[in-house]
This record gives sequence, structure tokens and C-alpha cells, in this order.
Amino acid sequence: MAHTNQSIDQRSINTIRFLSIDAIQKANSGHPGLPMGAAPMAYVLWNRHLRFNPKNPKWFNRDRFVLSAGHGSMLLYSLLHLTGYDSISIEDIKQFRQWGGRTPGHPENKKTPGVEVTTGPLGQGVANAVGMAMAEAHLAARFNKSDCKIVDHYTYTLMGDGCMMEGISSEACSLAGHLGLGKLIALYDDNRITIDGDTDLTFTEDVGKRFEAYGWQVLTVDDGDSDLDAISTALDDARTQTDKPTLIEVRTTIGFGSPAKAGTSDCHGAPLGPEEVAATRKMLGWNHDPFVVPDDVAAHMGTSIERGARLEPEWDDVFAKYKTKYPTDATAFENLISGDLPEDWANDLPSYGPNDKKNATRGHSGKCINALADSISGLIGGSADLAPSNKTIISGSGNFARGAYHNRNLRFGVREHAMGAICNGLALHGSGLVPYCATFLVFADYMRNAIRMSALCGARVIYIMTHDSIAVGEDGPTHQPVEQVASLRTIPDLVVIRPADGNETSGAYMAAVSDRNRPTLLALSRQSVPNLDGSSAEAVSRGAYIIANCKGQPDLILMGTGAELSLCVEAGKVLDGEGIPTRVVSIPSWELFDEQDEVYRESILPAAVTRRLAVEAGVSFGWLRYTGSHGSVIGVDRFGSSAPGNTCLEKFGFTTDNVLKEAKKLLSR
Amino acid sequence: MAHTNQSIDQRSINTIRFLSIDAIQKANSGHPGLPMGAAPMAYVLWNRHLRFNPKNPKWFNRDRFVLSAGHGSMLLYSLLHLTGYDSISIEDIKQFRQWGGRTPGHPENKKTPGVEVTTGPLGQGVANAVGMAMAEAHLAARFNKSDCKIVDHYTYTLMGDGCMMEGISSEACSLAGHLGLGKLIALYDDNRITIDGDTDLTFTEDVGKRFEAYGWQVLTVDDGDSDLDAISTALDDARTQTDKPTLIEVRTTIGFGSPAKAGTSDCHGAPLGPEEVAATRKMLGWNHDPFVVPDDVAAHMGTSIERGARLEPEWDDVFAKYKTKYPTDATAFENLISGDLPEDWANDLPSYGPNDKKNATRGHSGKCINALADSISGLIGGSADLAPSNKTIISGSGNFARGAYHNRNLRFGVREHAMGAICNGLALHGSGLVPYCATFLVFADYMRNAIRMSALCGARVIYIMTHDSIAVGEDGPTHQPVEQVASLRTIPDLVVIRPADGNETSGAYMAAVSDRNRPTLLALSRQSVPNLDGSSAEAVSRGAYIIANCKGQPDLILMGTGAELSLCVEAGKVLDGEGIPTRVVSIPSWELFDEQDEVYRESILPAAVTRRLAVEAGVSFGWLRYTGSHGSVIGVDRFGSSAPGNTCLEKFGFTTDNVLKEAKKLLSR
Repeated sequence: MAHTNQSIDQRSINTIRFLSIDAIQKANSGHPGLPMGAAPMAYVLWNRHLRFNPKNPKWFNRDRFVLSAGHGSMLLYSLLHLTGYDSISIEDIKQFRQWGGRTPGHPENKKTPGVEVTTGPLGQGVANAVGMAMAEAHLAARFNKSDCKIVDHYTYTLMGDGCMMEGISSEACSLAGHLGLGKLIALYDDNRITIDGDTDLTFTEDVGKRFEAYGWQVLTVDDGDSDLDAISTALDDARTQTDKPTLIEVRTTIGFGSPAKAGTSDCHGAPLGPEEVAATRKMLGWNHDPFVVPDDVAAHMGTSIERGARLEPEWDDVFAKYKTKYPTDATAFENLISGDLPEDWANDLPSYGPNDKKNATRGHSGKCINALADSISGLIGGSADLAPSNKTIISGSGNFARGAYHNRNLRFGVREHAMGAICNGLALHGSGLVPYCATFLVFADYMRNAIRMSALCGARVIYIMTHDSIAVGEDGPTHQPVEQVASLRTIPDLVVIRPADGNETSGAYMAAVSDRNRPTLLALSRQSVPNLDGSSAEAVSRGAYIIANCKGQPDLILMGTGAELSLCVEAGKVLDGEGIPTRVVSIPSWELFDEQDEVYRESILPAAVTRRLAVEAGVSFGWLRYTGSHGSVIGVDRFGSSAPGNTCLEKFGFTTDNVLKEAKKLLSR
Repeated sequence: MAHTNQSIDQRSINTIRFLSIDAIQKANSGHPGLPMGAAPMAYVLWNRHLRFNPKNPKWFNRDRFVLSAGHGSMLLYSLLHLTGYDSISIEDIKQFRQWGGRTPGHPENKKTPGVEVTTGPLGQGVANAVGMAMAEAHLAARFNKSDCKIVDHYTYTLMGDGCMMEGISSEACSLAGHLGLGKLIALYDDNRITIDGDTDLTFTEDVGKRFEAYGWQVLTVDDGDSDLDAISTALDDARTQTDKPTLIEVRTTIGFGSPAKAGTSDCHGAPLGPEEVAATRKMLGWNHDPFVVPDDVAAHMGTSIERGARLEPEWDDVFAKYKTKYPTDATAFENLISGDLPEDWANDLPSYGPNDKKNATRGHSGKCINALADSISGLIGGSADLAPSNKTIISGSGNFARGAYHNRNLRFGVREHAMGAICNGLALHGSGLVPYCATFLVFADYMRNAIRMSALCGARVIYIMTHDSIAVGEDGPTHQPVEQVASLRTIPDLVVIRPADGNETSGAYMAAVSDRNRPTLLALSRQSVPNLDGSSAEAVSRGAYIIANCKGQPDLILMGTGAELSLCVEAGKVLDGEGIPTRVVSIPSWELFDEQDEVYRESILPAAVTRRLAVEAGVSFGWLRYTGSHGSVIGVDRFGSSAPGNTCLEKFGFTTDNVLKEAKKLLSR
């Protein structure tokens, strides 16, 4: 069967190309250009360099590979299939992009073992890779011994021109250069084509020079279409450079092998078409039927199975030796990467009574982080240059930095979007890390796709978003979130919690850390709030609870979140004093409340009580869900204004008096 | 009064510093570090270079100045006051950051004449400046004659380290370099300090080299604290370079003059404190009381008034000459910059009947753009590398490019965030341009802060967001918007329109273009939709209307938006045929409908009809507003899935049968 004129390397590369071409053609949908052009570099990487065990996709010490150019998913599926992953059979490849399959249009880590992270939105993947390289560097610095390295892998990523143009990649790569992440290696598929056409249209910067400016080593492969040895040498050279990340610019031809479409944007995002598929077969001398993997190629690529079967036990031996020599560290390591937390991990979280000092919930959050830092050794995170404001410093640790990767305080710089994606990488490294990151809530807008990707990936990232309302005050409308809480509540699989005081902030951390496969976003106050009588940490996990109740059936329910809950509590006292039976409900998390059973929900918000007033310093959008058509909302349905925080609160109606006024209006209807 | 040992330059600079210091101290809130450190460069720019007329802040040919580091607002307010703008009196400066004032915490163009654009969220400003420079280049290319230049100004921006770190600045500056915008000049306040501390913590890249990689000229001023001539020379050199934008790296000391805090992050974002203010007065030899502007400084800085009174008439003369020699062009120019549209501008928008061919609303959108291109000569825009998918090309024009700035098709590259901010700059250039920009709806998340800023700035930007639901199909959940429409509806002062067919798409453009001080976002289908009987372009401006009605009072209201409206129409016919009086309501825009009076709203959705079913292929979040507690929603309250678009629609319940099923469930309650 073998073509005598094609080496096994060449035949393997063509197999990758045609699996991709054929699957895309069958689906009549997909992106053949990248798999065809990047097949040589991907083959060299996976066949000669990448250390993994296809029979155990979760082997801890595997090299990580992130396809940042996620639209080239068929490249990855072809590689997973050919190197022996059980997750992708040839039937799966034939089911490319079909309902319920394991080969979706863009790679999804929740669907396909062997896929490290969900990619597709451009630039996210390279930032995820930076996070994975940071995870490796951190664990290596904490656990490796001079005579015994148990954490020792590379993180590879494959980027296209699109990834390069996105701002998130600039942020992530600037930080990676700053941190000197020597075990991060990015292959840049430099094919000079984007959807709109030639990069001459929009993208003529000197990418190599830009990466040198970031502090990266930059290598070039002039002929990425056929010079496999040059690719391999570059990968060797990349690993030799230990204190800088490496970018390998690989010059390729998009859609290589297609007589009519190679080198054009026509093959970027659409099937080649039956005739062009045939012409490409002819051009590349490939006379196999669709989806055929020649036996010699199967055997050659399948050697990954044996390599994996050797590599993992080798690592097991290293770890066994480590365990003998460093039993305490070994136990700590095993505990960490298991992802299991000590049973009493939440015991150190602070609790408060109404006489305890007022504090901002961002302040309480800072105390929670520090309370958890001992029991959760994987807790690691920081802020996008707002650490003093966001209160994110772990006081017992230093800064994660070049030469000090063992530290747990991450300094992201003013790079919110990359920050979120880096945390996704830290979480999906799969080594028990519990990443958190922080900025002002209004700047959640800068990192929104990364937050969405946390949810889609099932990454437990804790987003600490402080300065959560118009109470931000003087900084004005650019810095006052108004619509952010509501808009974040629209994201599926993201839990948003807006705690009202110290106990609820502790409860928010209990919920966030316990939720192993979901991100949680905390909206926290800039301003001090009282510790409320009856507030409960435990109840936060139920999303809503009664914080103050009247006897018997209430005439009115007041409900609030965050800092505004105290206004409801105050108003409730006044109304009760006036003989109006009033219940006050705290609703720190809509998502968690909606997950409770009907009985619980009815016990908190009985359908029979239709006079309901919600108080939240944000847009009223969505509150009808709890107030019902007969209720009302004190919200902020416009942009904020620059003035002292208390003035803003007063002008926008966040006073006990106004709550009373609106409550009485409701009662008089 | 004058200190004999201080030059008038020095005294002017110190006046800027102390107006800033004192205002921030009085407000007990603000960012003194930047105004103190950047005062020299700002003084040199405004006193020796910037061409403007303080008595006519809107003079067309003024140089534009954008304070990208918006937290340094007091620098700008001090300059506006000292150079003679009527918008900022000394009383205004004393009212810094107070309710209802003209000196908010970050500069706001809607509040303060002389402020070109609202800044504060980092990196937005430099991208706005790129947009303004593009506007200038475009108008110059269209209207200037070799013997008569009527469009001829520079765009200056002042950036800090924060701006530099944000991805949006990388996107914008890479594009600016690509386009060779020679009249864009960025001053980089290189003070090596951010909120968290020294830039060594996070930001050690070689910024100059990075900008050279983008194709910029990079100049350096080593001593930006005192070498005014070097600053001035650099500005001259920047203007000499006509085919590249220029970055001037000005090395400064943050909080210059503060004995205890200069050069540290302590003075970045907090008042100096009374003692340190006093110490700074002593250090800088400044023995004036707070808010005092020495007479000689007032006179010296006030020369801007005379300069402006000379510059504008000089330009008037140029324009008069132009008008004589090129009367047709002059009229076109005047019409354009007036912002007024020809009365019949909307006449060419297409209209459709039910027998017209199905098309995707993105296709209809492309036809609208081309229909309007003639009558609206300021229409200019493009896509973030998705032009073929977003259908944004003006077929009668070429690409806006180096040497072809007269063209109206913008090619943004894969740079969504910068794209939005650039369009804000194009709109706020104030010259009648009507910018539009486009990407897939799901990637609105990449540019969300820019969209928010459009709303806050009152910039008429048209956001063309295609592929607006799970009907995107095979590309899968990373590319299928689910929560985006709802989340965009939460942004104040943004109009979201999701048209159902050809007529409604025409109506969406009518509404968007007419709304001179608000952005509009169009959510458009990837898939073809039928042209519906009864659909109306005119009614779109009312947000909702009855597209099909029964006789008498309906038992049921079906309502839908976008592509799903046709399912409601189909189901309505079936129900009516079964003798169930059914009304079908199209709701292309919630915001526009909510702005209608009570009578109109009641006429569309009568309170008495409580059985209401909404159909929209997105999260159900917020729909209760129209369905009421007794209604229900067919929505998508989870992430999508990779499969052919029709399969997705079917699996998620977007079929006429399912609408009928849900309707009957509702009727049986």
C-alpha cells in the first residue's frame, strides 16, 4: 500500500491532512486550511517531542498541548485518533460536528478526553497555555528536589494569525515574557491568511520583534511545509532556552496541497468541495479512500502508545523514589493533585455577630482568602493591578515571580482578559489548584469571554469583583458597575454571589470552593457594611434565605443582595414596629436559589405573598423573577455619576427612608 | 508675586500641578500622581503645539487631545481652565468629583465641552484616538486639494503604563501602525509605577521595541520632568514623520515634587494628604494658596485664547477659498460635518413582500448598508476579519488603507475590542461620520466595554452582530451566542434590535441612523428567514407591533424576535385555524418599546391577556417583563452544542410544533 516515493513522515502528515479534509467534507462544515498547513509541525511535535500517554489522558506529568487556533479542531482530533486515544475512534471522526458527538466544531475539554481546554474564541488558548505553564512552574518550585523532579513537563500551544491579533494574546504573552516561563513553547502557524484575505490587509507588524520585546526567544522555520528537521531542531532549541518562553514562527501554506485553494482564504473556513478534495488527493499522491488510515501510518503513529506506556511508569518510578526520600512532601503533593480538600477546610473561615466591626465585603473577602490559604494549599491568585483595592494578597506568601514561582500571589498587571484565561489554564492544569483573580466589577466587561469560557470549560475559577455598585462614588460612571451583576447572571453555568456581610462572604467562599466544576463570581462592596443579625454563611449555598421574619404570614417581603440588604433589614424593623408583618429575604445568589427544590423556594418566597420589594444597586433587569408582576424594584436603570459614594446611594434612592416609601407605595396598591 | 527663580514655563507647570493637587485634596479623592508627573509634557503640548480654540471647543479643524489615562482627569481640567475654556471655571475645579458637576472623576465628553471623549477604562482612549486619526485621514483624503487643505489636524493622546498593558491598546496600535497614521502622536507617560507598585512587578517588556514592531516611529525623552525643549523637539519630530504614527516615551516621575511620595504608587490614586501637600508646596517653592492661579501664569496660559481667535479664522479663510474654487466639494463637506442627513436618506432602503426570496437578516443588513452608502456619505465601517460572514462590504468603495484613506471599507483585523473603541473615535470626531462595525454576536463579549463606552459617550455607532443564536450550528457553543442578547439589553442607553426579516432589518437601520446620540446593536441571523406578511420597517422604531391579529380580544399572545418570529406567525395561523384567537407580536427592540407611552404599550400587550408565550433563541432572562408571571418562554437556558443549525434549532425546541405545544400547555392552565 505504501507509496514508495513518500516517507513514513510524509504519509503520516498526509493522513492527518486527509482525515481532516474528509471529515470536514462529510460534515460539509469546518476549517480545512489550518490542519492542512499545520500538519507538518503538529506531526513533528506529537510524534517526536510531546510526552503523553494516550491510554491515560490525565497522566499528571504529561506535556500539555493547547490548540489556541481552535477552529483547526480536526488537526487535534486526527492526532488524538492516530496516537491512540480511545476518545476518538474513526467513527467519531466521521461524526465531526454532529449532535451529541465527541468531535464538536471547536475542541471541548468536557466532551473529549485528551482535549486539555475548550478553545475557539481566538487568543484564549495561548493565555490558557500561559496559565498551564505557570501551574507547572509553581508546582515544580514547590515540590521538585535537586535530585528528584516530579513536576517536569512543557506546555505547547499552536497559534494562528487571529490569535496574534487579539489583545488577549498580547497581554498573556507580555506577562509570560516578564515571568520568564521557559517551559512554554508557542508554535505560530504563520500562513499570512485570515478570513478576510491576506494579512497585508490588516496585519503587517513584525511579530517576531514584538515577541522579542516581550522577552521571548524567537525562532523561525522558513519552510514549515516540508522542512521537518528544522521544525524538530527549533523545538529542541526551544527547550534548551530555560528562562524565556519561545515563539517558533513556522512559515506555512494554508490549505497545503489544494491546487486551487492553497495559500488563499478560500480554504480557511469552508470545506474544499468534492472536486477540490479529489484534486488535492491527486496533488499529494494520496490514493486512499476517505477516512482510511494506512496500516504503516497506524503503526508508526501508534508508537505513541508504547512510548506512553513507558513514560508514565518511568514517572511512577521517580515519584516512588520521591515518596521514599520525601514522604511529607509526597503526601502534600498527592493531596494537592487529587483535588480533594481536607475535611475541615472551611473551619477557619471567619464568622461574625452584629456587634462586630463594619467592614466592606471586599475586606471580608481578603480575610477569607487568608483564612483559607493554609488549609487549601492550592489556593493561588491575584489581581489585575488592583491588589490593594481588591484585597487579594495572601499575607503569608510572596509574589509569584521569576525565581520565586513557589509563591502564591499572582501579579497580573493591567491585563484583565488574559488574567481570566490564565486562571482557566491554572484550573484545567488539573493539579488541584484553586485559582482566583480580581478586578473592579465594572471591568468584568474586559474579561467577559474568559469568564464565559470558565463556565463552558467547567473551570473552578473564583472571580473576585470588588467595587460592585454606584457606591464606588467619585470615580464616576466609567468605574461604577450598573448592569454588570445582571449581565453576569445571564451566563449559563456561572454562579454569581453578592454577599451582604461577613458571614455571607464566608459562605460565598464555602460555596465557591465546593463547586469543583464551575466558576463563581463574587460581587463585593467597596464600602463598609454592617454585620447583620441572622446572616448565615451556611445558607449562602441555598442562594436565598429568610434573614428576618415576622410572625405568621407576611404582608410584604423585602429582598436584597449585597450592601443593600441592610436597608431591607432596617426597613423591615420599622415596618414590623408599625404592625406591618414583614419578611426580609437575603438572596446572595440567584443561580443557587433557582437550583433549590420547589418546597424550599416556596418556603422562602411564598406564592401567596405578592407584595415584594427588591433592593439592589444595579439594573432592575431580571428581578421580576422574584418580585412577580405585583412587586417592584429599587434599582439603578441608568449610568451612575461621579460623587461621593454616600451621595450616589442617596441620590439613587438607596436609603432606608426610600425603601420604606416604596414599600408603603406597594402596600397601598 | 513671581518667584524670580522660576521661569514662566515652570510656574505654569506648577500651577497645573497644584490645581490638580488641591482639587484632589479638597475632594479627598482622585489621582494626583499623573497630573504631577505629566504636567511638563502636557504643558508643552498645550502651550506650544496644540491647535485649538478654547472659545469654540467644537471648531472642526482643532487638534484632538485624548487623555487615555483618564484617571489623570485633573490634568485635563487644569489645562482646560488655564487655556480659557468657559466650561471649567475655578469653581468647577473646586467641585471636582461632586454630584452634578462638570469635573467628574474621569473625563466625560457629555458633561464637559473640551473633553473629546469619555475615558477612564484603560486603553480605550488610545483606541479612540486611533479612530479620530482615521477620521481625519479619511476626510483629508476625500476633501483636501493639493492647493487647499481644509482637513488638517493632529490627534494626540496621553497614555500611561496601564493603557500599555491592556490588550486593546495592542490591537489599536498594531492597526494604527499598519495603516501608517502619520498624524497620530502618543505621549507615553513612562513613570514605571502602577497601582500595585513598580512596573518591575509585572511589566518589563521593551515598549519602544514593541511599537517599532507595529511600524511606529519611537522617540524618547529621557528627562520628562524638566527637559521641556526635548519634549518640544520630540513633538516637532513626530509631526515631521508623516507616514508612521509616533510614540514619544517620556520618562517621568509620578507625583513629581512630593518629597515622600514621588516615584511611588502611594500617589497614584489617593490624595497626598494635607501634610504632604504642604511639603510638596515647599519642595516646589510654591507659596500660593490652594486654587490660586498667579496672574502671570493666567496671562501666559491664556494666550491660547488669542491663538485660538487667530487659528479658527485662518481656517475659515482657507475654507472660504476652498468654497470658491471647489463649491461642490465644499457643499458636500458642509453637509457631511453638519451631521444632518438628506431628508430622503432612508428612501433607498429595501422593502419586501412575503413572496420575496428568503434571506438571512445579515444578508438584508448588507443590502441596507449598500442602499445607504450613497445617501449617507459619512457611512464608514467594516468587520473584525469577518467581512464575508458579516456582509459589511460597501461594494462601491475600496479598502481604507495606507494611500487610500478615502475609502470607506474598514478592515479591523481580528481586533474586536479596538474596533469598538475606534468606532467611538470615528463618531466623536464630530464630523458626521456614521461608523459601523461587525463581528459574530458571541464576540460582543470581546468588546463589551467599548460598547458600554459608546452608550456612555453618546456615540452613534452601529454594531452589526451576526450569527445571533444556536442556529450558528456546527461551530458549537464557543461560537453560539446564548446569553449575549439578554446581557446587551442590560446596558443603559444602548438600543438592541433583533429584526425578524427584510423589512425589519431596513427598519433597524432607520432607527439606528436616526438615533444621533446613541449606539444601536443589531443582532442578525446567520440562517435564512422568510419575509413575513405584515412585517413593518416603520414599526421597528416603536420597538414592538402586532404582526398578525385575531378578531376581537385574543386568548393568547405569541411574541418573538428575530428569526424565531416566523415560528410564532406559523403557530398563530394554526391556532387561529383551530378557533383560538391569537395575536402575534413582533418585539424587535425592548428598549424602543419601553420608551413608548402606556397607551401604545397597552394596545400591543393588553394587560387583560395574561396567556403569553415568548419565543427567542437565547436565555429567557428578562422576558418576564413581557410574558408576565402567567406566561412562559421558549428559550435556551444553557450553552449550545455543535451540530447543523437546523438540528440545533429542533433539539432546543425552535419548531412550530413545539411553539404549538407550549401554547396549548399555557391555554390549558
